[in-house]
Amino acid sequence: MLDRLNLLRHAILDLNLTAFLISSTTHLRYLMGFTGSNGVGLITSDQSFFVTDWRYREQAKQEVSNAEILVAFRDLFAALKDRNALAIGARLGFESHHLNFRMFSHLRKTFPHLKLTATEYVIEKIAARKTAAEITAIRRAIAISEQAWREVLPLITPGVEESAIAAEISYRGRKLGADGDAFEPIIASGWRSALPHGISSHKTIAAGEMVVIDFGFLVDGYPSDITRTIAVGDPGPQLRQAYEVVREANRIARERLKPGCKGKEIDQLIRDFIAAQGLGEAFSHSLGHGLSMELHALPRLGPTSEDEVPPNSVVTLEPGVYLAGLGGVRIEDDALVTETGCDVLTSLPRELICVA
Amino acid sequence: MLDRLNLLRHAILDLNLTAFLISSTTHLRYLMGFTGSNGVGLITSDQSFFVTDWRYREQAKQEVSNAEILVAFRDLFAALKDRNALAIGARLGFESHHLNFRMFSHLRKTFPHLKLTATEYVIEKIAARKTAAEITAIRRAIAISEQAWREVLPLITPGVEESAIAAEISYRGRKLGADGDAFEPIIASGWRSALPHGISSHKTIAAGEMVVIDFGFLVDGYPSDITRTIAVGDPGPQLRQAYEVVREANRIARERLKPGCKGKEIDQLIRDFIAAQGLGEAFSHSLGHGLSMELHALPRLGPTSEDEVPPNSVVTLEPGVYLAGLGGVRIEDDALVTETGCDVLTSLPRELICVA
Repeated sequence: MLDRLNLLRHAILDLNLTAFLISSTTHLRYLMGFTGSNGVGLITSDQSFFVTDWRYREQAKQEVSNAEILVAFRDLFAALKDRNALAIGARLGFESHHLNFRMFSHLRKTFPHLKLTATEYVIEKIAARKTAAEITAIRRAIAISEQAWREVLPLITPGVEESAIAAEISYRGRKLGADGDAFEPIIASGWRSALPHGISSHKTIAAGEMVVIDFGFLVDGYPSDITRTIAVGDPGPQLRQAYEVVREANRIARERLKPGCKGKEIDQLIRDFIAAQGLGEAFSHSLGHGLSMELHALPRLGPTSEDEVPPNSVVTLEPGVYLAGLGGVRIEDDALVTETGCDVLTSLPRELICVA
Repeated sequence: MLDRLNLLRHAILDLNLTAFLISSTTHLRYLMGFTGSNGVGLITSDQSFFVTDWRYREQAKQEVSNAEILVAFRDLFAALKDRNALAIGARLGFESHHLNFRMFSHLRKTFPHLKLTATEYVIEKIAARKTAAEITAIRRAIAISEQAWREVLPLITPGVEESAIAAEISYRGRKLGADGDAFEPIIASGWRSALPHGISSHKTIAAGEMVVIDFGFLVDGYPSDITRTIAVGDPGPQLRQAYEVVREANRIARERLKPGCKGKEIDQLIRDFIAAQGLGEAFSHSLGHGLSMELHALPRLGPTSEDEVPPNSVVTLEPGVYLAGLGGVRIEDDALVTETGCDVLTSLPRELICVA
């Protein structure tokens, strides 16, 4: 984690800042190891501070070893001021995506003489390039996910509620050693499978339906994110065709992902392929996203993304086709970007499985 | 939900605003029924708009019936501008806790001529007073939680991992009909039970330890939030005494909660009681918080809270004592504030249970 703070110090220097405020709790975990829900970090050229409230007094002592810990009764910024943590004239960067307007106003009031600079994606860019230990955690999260999938697949039959399948997946992942779900599992069947982000409901799965299953687990703070779509009985020719289009789109994405390509380029490639099959309107979300401690991380693989895909990043590849009222298909894999291409980390079969 | 929008319109008028931007996704669900993860709402004196992105096109149609739906490709504010949703000279309030600095800057750029006003807790105050339907949902979430508790209690024995208990609770709640966890269950044993907010770990529960179990489930978007502490074997005299202090503190809180009292007053009352038992320093968090669709809602019951407790609000009462290195105790109930006092919604026993 000292390395991460050093990388951040270099980034701060490049931005002509002298200090940086970390307000994303995910980034506090990434940089300082803190797993609680309230805190801020402050990095200067030669000092590091971590501030939390009284509830986390003991936990901070156990978790944070690379920063001076300050415990506030309520006001985190006042604790930094009392400690004289910021020199007069400091140029302080803050995370504009991770500081709400109220906190920003309070920061401005607490340090009226400082120059505050809104920044974007400073830590996210550092986090995009994974170390071996981070890749190991993601691999482990994927291995648990795939084992949970194999255990739950036989339970998906007509008459079962979507939410019951969600309960089983979540349970098995935890029993297999995950720290928890990476996100609430999506089990969407029949017409609901045409909702790209519909979470699980109490709808009963019926014969002739597609079922989209999108799930993931956390290991040491790192997520997996996998989708498979199965058919319960025969879903009919339109959805069968949609399935094969998505499967081929997924294959092309895995084949073409490599370092240096732009997020919008690989997204466009897949979007064009799906459109050429007559299903262009039906792919109504981005191709994928980076996986860091944040589930939706850099690089973004979407229509407007200028992000370049860096080596050692991990991304999802998740083309989908959604036919309103009828059903949907999504096949999502996780891939590690190597020096020349990518190493697909997920290994579940991609052929259409029809259960009955 | 029309009633809720009307209440919001009255609140807007009181603030001398002509329009209000809703950016909290929880508030979008509360006011418009939308359960997705991206969107904004706009309320004017006579119109209501809901904007989301293309992923949620179909879902919005199904869920949102009290607002005009706009689907943006990417930029939610641009969609409002294109629709001419805001009159020239409008005085627009926004949720300062729920709009990050980046979104705020973008709002300012999109509508450079509007007067923007930062507001706090406008919708939170409306949401604090529950309708009968909301209370029913919370009661159901509590009933599921209590049944899950009864099923899991026999599994808590020496040698079991904290995270295995978390998996069992979470699973049983879902199987009993919950939509999911209200928050990641906290199972904290032995020295970890002295961390007020330590989540579950892979630590094994051992004889002689206290185990704090803090959990809750969601029903129709509404949470329960319950804590019980049990002893595995004999925890020793210090923790037994701490337990009885917390139990009495919880009893006093239930007895004294009534509408009109201030959050900081009832917190102080309980804090003084615990201090008088020689454990003042050890109660290192607030007495409780409101329960709405937001888990930590109004009214806040804490040392600095000026919130008045309104009738028909639901709050947690959760005194605790934490002895660093040794262990902790917390007993948390949920209570509905009535016209004259409160109706305690949780019914699990509060006597110390020693399992072994």
